[in-house]
Amino acid sequence: MATASNEAHHALDPGISKLQFAPFSSALDAGFWHELTQKKLNEYRLDETPKVIKGYYYNGDPLGLPARLTLEFSAFDMNASIPARCCPAFGTLYNTNTFETFKSCDKKSLLEKEANEIWESIKSGAALENPMLLNRFLLLTFADLKKYHFYYWFCYPALCFPDGICIIQKPVCLGDRFPLNQIQALQKAYDELCQAEGVTALPYFLIKYHDNSVAITLLKKWDGFFQEQGEKVTVGVYDPCNLTHYPGWPLRNFLVLAAHKWGSSLQSVEVLCFRDRTMQGVRDITHSIIFEIKLPQRALGPDCPKAVGWEKNQKGGMGPRMVNLSECMDPKRLAESSVDLNLKLMCWRLVPTLDLEKIVSAKCLLLGAGTLGCSVARTLVGWGVRKITFVDNAKISYSNPVRQPLYEFEDCLSGGKPKALAAADRLQKIFPGVNSEGYNMSIPMPGHPVNFSEVTMAQAQKDVAKLEQLIDAHDVVFLLMDTRESRWLPAVIAASKRKLVINAALGFDTFVVMRHGLKKPKQQESGDSYFSNASGSSDLLGSSLFSNIPGYKLGCYFCNDVVAPGDSTRDRTLDQQCTVSRPGLAMIAGALAVELMVSVLQHPEGGYAVASSSDDRMNEPPTSLGLVPHQIRGFLSRFDNVLPVSLAFDKCTACSPKIWDMSDDETV
Amino acid sequence: MATASNEAHHALDPGISKLQFAPFSSALDAGFWHELTQKKLNEYRLDETPKVIKGYYYNGDPLGLPARLTLEFSAFDMNASIPARCCPAFGTLYNTNTFETFKSCDKKSLLEKEANEIWESIKSGAALENPMLLNRFLLLTFADLKKYHFYYWFCYPALCFPDGICIIQKPVCLGDRFPLNQIQALQKAYDELCQAEGVTALPYFLIKYHDNSVAITLLKKWDGFFQEQGEKVTVGVYDPCNLTHYPGWPLRNFLVLAAHKWGSSLQSVEVLCFRDRTMQGVRDITHSIIFEIKLPQRALGPDCPKAVGWEKNQKGGMGPRMVNLSECMDPKRLAESSVDLNLKLMCWRLVPTLDLEKIVSAKCLLLGAGTLGCSVARTLVGWGVRKITFVDNAKISYSNPVRQPLYEFEDCLSGGKPKALAAADRLQKIFPGVNSEGYNMSIPMPGHPVNFSEVTMAQAQKDVAKLEQLIDAHDVVFLLMDTRESRWLPAVIAASKRKLVINAALGFDTFVVMRHGLKKPKQQESGDSYFSNASGSSDLLGSSLFSNIPGYKLGCYFCNDVVAPGDSTRDRTLDQQCTVSRPGLAMIAGALAVELMVSVLQHPEGGYAVASSSDDRMNEPPTSLGLVPHQIRGFLSRFDNVLPVSLAFDKCTACSPKIWDMSDDETV
Repeated sequence: MATASNEAHHALDPGISKLQFAPFSSALDAGFWHELTQKKLNEYRLDETPKVIKGYYYNGDPLGLPARLTLEFSAFDMNASIPARCCPAFGTLYNTNTFETFKSCDKKSLLEKEANEIWESIKSGAALENPMLLNRFLLLTFADLKKYHFYYWFCYPALCFPDGICIIQKPVCLGDRFPLNQIQALQKAYDELCQAEGVTALPYFLIKYHDNSVAITLLKKWDGFFQEQGEKVTVGVYDPCNLTHYPGWPLRNFLVLAAHKWGSSLQSVEVLCFRDRTMQGVRDITHSIIFEIKLPQRALGPDCPKAVGWEKNQKGGMGPRMVNLSECMDPKRLAESSVDLNLKLMCWRLVPTLDLEKIVSAKCLLLGAGTLGCSVARTLVGWGVRKITFVDNAKISYSNPVRQPLYEFEDCLSGGKPKALAAADRLQKIFPGVNSEGYNMSIPMPGHPVNFSEVTMAQAQKDVAKLEQLIDAHDVVFLLMDTRESRWLPAVIAASKRKLVINAALGFDTFVVMRHGLKKPKQQESGDSYFSNASGSSDLLGSSLFSNIPGYKLGCYFCNDVVAPGDSTRDRTLDQQCTVSRPGLAMIAGALAVELMVSVLQHPEGGYAVASSSDDRMNEPPTSLGLVPHQIRGFLSRFDNVLPVSLAFDKCTACSPKIWDMSDDETV
Repeated sequence: MATASNEAHHALDPGISKLQFAPFSSALDAGFWHELTQKKLNEYRLDETPKVIKGYYYNGDPLGLPARLTLEFSAFDMNASIPARCCPAFGTLYNTNTFETFKSCDKKSLLEKEANEIWESIKSGAALENPMLLNRFLLLTFADLKKYHFYYWFCYPALCFPDGICIIQKPVCLGDRFPLNQIQALQKAYDELCQAEGVTALPYFLIKYHDNSVAITLLKKWDGFFQEQGEKVTVGVYDPCNLTHYPGWPLRNFLVLAAHKWGSSLQSVEVLCFRDRTMQGVRDITHSIIFEIKLPQRALGPDCPKAVGWEKNQKGGMGPRMVNLSECMDPKRLAESSVDLNLKLMCWRLVPTLDLEKIVSAKCLLLGAGTLGCSVARTLVGWGVRKITFVDNAKISYSNPVRQPLYEFEDCLSGGKPKALAAADRLQKIFPGVNSEGYNMSIPMPGHPVNFSEVTMAQAQKDVAKLEQLIDAHDVVFLLMDTRESRWLPAVIAASKRKLVINAALGFDTFVVMRHGLKKPKQQESGDSYFSNASGSSDLLGSSLFSNIPGYKLGCYFCNDVVAPGDSTRDRTLDQQCTVSRPGLAMIAGALAVELMVSVLQHPEGGYAVASSSDDRMNEPPTSLGLVPHQIRGFLSRFDNVLPVSLAFDKCTACSPKIWDMSDDETV
């Protein structure tokens, strides 16, 4: 496979009378890679089919810069405007899913395919009508989005004359050849044609000049433009090269077109490499070069000529290039996009119907920042949840960090930091993209009467009001406290506000993770008949005692209680007080609590979804993530989970209508 | 309930002619509480029965110090020696399990019970034989071992004369009353008696003096000592008080004894409060006080007199005292003991047969410090495991911290810290008591051939040697890598070294957690027949295809493979490469991996234990922690686990005899 750079190397030797060309350098900016990342994640995913992209090149660079084909973030938008006086070029993006595919890609055949299309457009005349068809490029990429390493290989295909092109008249500067007024006339003619065509640049054009005039036109106007037999033919090319002795790459395919279309009537052709720079506010085209060549028309047969064009890498060898953008990006944004990537990966192949937005946007209130609270928060950030709020009134003690995965030894010193605040801080340290807050406050509990002093009563009222406000501001309420009775008030408030409640509680080697029944919106209620078979899509299947129970009929944590919540911390020995459990239990229950939330959110009916039971394990699952149970009861000693379903109890102390109707008032 | 302090208050008024006494102050040092903590954790646990403890008091304090009854760490050791010249006192410890019991304890009845025993010892004459029986105290405690708050209430019971004791001759200093030679004779006589009795101090004694002599004897020698009717009787008391006008508390019960035993023949008694201090190297007893009182013998009936003695608290009121030792203890030791406490709590009530030491002392090698490795490490520290070693060759990337709970955002900067080192560091930050190490190295893999250059070959050999050395130095090897083939070499080495292997692997919403079959020790093998029914306790039940399969017949991760491990990372798309999984999955699988290890270690046969299957869930579990499965296969979409059991495959690429016999050589 011949390469562009090989020829560029020869081009530097002025002693050869064959025309040589300076190749393009690819210039892919960070914006391009950023946009490719977005496209890959949100649109292409695993799609490897070729994509059309748009780059541009410029003929106004100062001496010393290589001729560049630039791709920026706008490369994927065909309607994006091109910078002033730049010339667009359309290319084909082959973005592979794996590094292996990238490496093993048949680059020879890719080049041949592209070259053939150019050849066909020349033969068919399409390239005359639309010279942009000559300016095609290829870009082969592999984006390693975990590391922000981007591998790529650029190719600007050029059709070759087998024996090259002989120079008749060596390149000279326009300024050395023509008087200033003629040069200005040329510039004016070019500008007018651009304006007439509504383009920023003309890649190729025809020029006719006499002593007093310069005319410029489009390629397709050839026949009317050069009317006299033997008339001198000058072609113009928008030239990104700024070397004084060599044209840039775009001329190559144009010369093949010229030879094929007009070679029979032309011995030679004059070429103007149009270069157009503005220095210190003064526009100047006098450094454009002009030369004459022999058109080797007979060299072209009916088949596509050989093509070259793969770019060399930084080391000058044949190989792909790599850019590592992990260091030049804002690390916090990098972290955010990396986290998002991991989640989106799930959608690509495994669960294409997964609605991540429903999960990521769920505002989660965690009541309790202990073993369960920490594990729940960790799993929530894993799912990309952005809004996490903790409520707890405890301080971090020395035994906590080994079981509560948001705390460290240092947090225990000097009496211990308040858990809720420390947990919120830690989440930020784990993932700066999370919006975490902590409230160091008590949750008022039945059976724990405050002293009825004005001060403590006022504080309790304040706590109730704050709790209500917090539940209002969130979508999902997690009950993760270490006492039964502290779950009561939040359960009542959440029920009255129709918030999804996920409840988790631990024994020594058993746990329960459950969603509370979600009451119907008020407008759908008919008096206190919500326990009867009211209408609702979830009802279509009917409901018996253990199957097809819709979400609004499901029980809450307190529905199975025969007594009201009391003070369960009174008179407990130490082993009861600290809810001694096997260390793995909280991690399992915490993770399941979040996975249950995710399953509920993915169900089209959300919290109203019919509850799955253990019996449903053999059936078609209701969502792409599987079952949507009411309860998961786990038994670590048997490594077993069962999925009970239970109905709401109409005299429940937490969720029966009387209780939560009361709480519908401003204060409870 | 009268209190000691009430009377102390009166004692400060010198105008009253009734004798008043200075009460004891309890002096419980940190060592005492530390030892109580240890006793509670390791011995008493939930046992609330009274315990005998031993304190002491001193009669040599300089003026200004209160009379103290000191308890230090030796209080629980009846054989512990008492400091020189100090006087022992025996007490009864009531350590309650809950603060509620502590508060609601019937202190009046406790005091009466103790007073009655003193009274009985007086009546029976036992106290004459052993005057220590008069010196009894009570200590009621509640140790909040989570906060290192110790609540206590001290009582030194004193029997009371209903109308008090009248002073006949007010207290004067020994030095003001006797010439120096007589004082020296007293001191000599006291020292000789102590020596003869082999005690550090005599709490009570009898004194007889004339102009030229001083005699001292034990209480029980009364009859022979005071022979003449009407002879002046002087009693000595080892007196912790150093007030010039008042005796200390120990005199009280002695006077009751004196009145009861000798009151009928005595109108009055002279009391020497023996005080014995050494200042600037010079011993001095001249500040001892001496006074005479009337013995109110008739005031005592047959019933136990009223008693007082509960100590006032720091505020001067009736109430318990509290010491908060959380701040004065070394925080790192505090953390260690707190962590141990949480674990020991499990033993107390829930699983009394739990052998924590087997778990805590297990040296764990974690191969892989990613999502699984982090969760496994977290659960291990929760179980108190002290030796945790990580091996990983990856660096922390931006997407890691939200799913890998040992890393934070900052760990990702500047290219990312090596995971193994960062994980080890983080564990130390969580719990300074852990001994964690990290090795940033690759695990050589089949199917990933190194370039056969000398450098890379040498590195691979070094890695193999290091891996072997690490496996040798640990008890349990966790396979937590993200590729199948990287598990192969460690599986082979661990099998050859008979190390317990716990393997965990994740799918999108499924996981497998398993223990590898543990080969029999070499001496038990008979050629290659270890797959046949060799003898062994696990074999007693026989073994069929799916039940009663002993540990040494169980398969490994590779036993079900039909192909050898190859390069599974080649040609995988991004979603396959990073083992995309539901975020809760790794936490569940990691926790279960550790719980499986714990269950295996608790089984008397350890890794040779017969494997439990799903069918065993209804049967009596083999250990107090439950089943000991071979594999746990989890299905998050169904919230279900099954427990398959599979036999070792005799041509397995990892665990069949040929493979691991090869690896028994020094290098593999």
